[in-house]
Amino acid sequence: MGNQKEQINPALIAAFVKSTKNVLSTMVGIESTIGKPIIKVAESPSYDVSGIVGFTGEITGSVVVSFKEDCALGIVSAFTMEEYEVHTEDFADAVGELCNMIAGNAKKDFGIEAGIGIPNVVVGKNHVISRLKEVPCVVIPCECANGEFAVEVNIKQLTPAPVGV
Amino acid sequence: MGNQKEQINPALIAAFVKSTKNVLSTMVGIESTIGKPIIKVAESPSYDVSGIVGFTGEITGSVVVSFKEDCALGIVSAFTMEEYEVHTEDFADAVGELCNMIAGNAKKDFGIEAGIGIPNVVVGKNHVISRLKEVPCVVIPCECANGEFAVEVNIKQLTPAPVGV
Repeated sequence: MGNQKEQINPALIAAFVKSTKNVLSTMVGIESTIGKPIIKVAESPSYDVSGIVGFTGEITGSVVVSFKEDCALGIVSAFTMEEYEVHTEDFADAVGELCNMIAGNAKKDFGIEAGIGIPNVVVGKNHVISRLKEVPCVVIPCECANGEFAVEVNIKQLTPAPVGV
Repeated sequence: MGNQKEQINPALIAAFVKSTKNVLSTMVGIESTIGKPIIKVAESPSYDVSGIVGFTGEITGSVVVSFKEDCALGIVSAFTMEEYEVHTEDFADAVGELCNMIAGNAKKDFGIEAGIGIPNVVVGKNHVISRLKEVPCVVIPCECANGEFAVEVNIKQLTPAPVGV
């Protein structure tokens, strides 16, 4: 193995794809198109607004849902039926809540014991988020009427048993 | 109470002050001056490089250790005896490890059941990190020979019992 990264179980990625589509469709009322997941190049920037949710228990690492600014504004306005400005606590809160739902929904599908932490939301052009080195970060590219966003999955399953998604 | 924020137990803040001084002094070999903790104004930016560590269990929320870029480079070089460039995986990794130690050391002093997550590291000028709204974010300003950094504590104790620090 040496420096080679471990793989992420594809079933975990599938759970995030399903969860993202479902949360956007049922909770926000927006249809989204999910692209083919790709491996993120280390230290490449995320979009302008990123919600980070950490996993604990049998899953460790984090998922980042990162949006272009306009896209984040459009989605959370549709989600909460309120208008926002970017540099406000309420906007960050709504972005965090949305990310929490995407992570929580995916977690339900894992079928293993995992907890999720309180979301942190990062706002800033060209910010780079680093994470677990041993596993790749898989980027799920997403698009909706409000623009582009991405779900960046960087988690490790502690028990190697297959996840029943 | 209404919209008023809950207080953070001062003993938790004291644990972070002690931990920051100890980790810098014993693990990095750098003496630091810790200023008077202040309440962070919502949505004000952190420094250029921020390590985020989430808490779980009886403590929920996160601690962010945020550095001016030069300060982060100086401290982690002293910590690992290696030179770094900012936009590299190894630099982010070293920053994350340092933040992990500061959070882990403080946690030991809490005397209550809490877990910490894998650190995320954000690199980017003028990034703003948002977090738990119900409790204030307490900023512990720090200074060392390498420059300024800050420990931003935004955690909530789930059981109201006093923490024995």
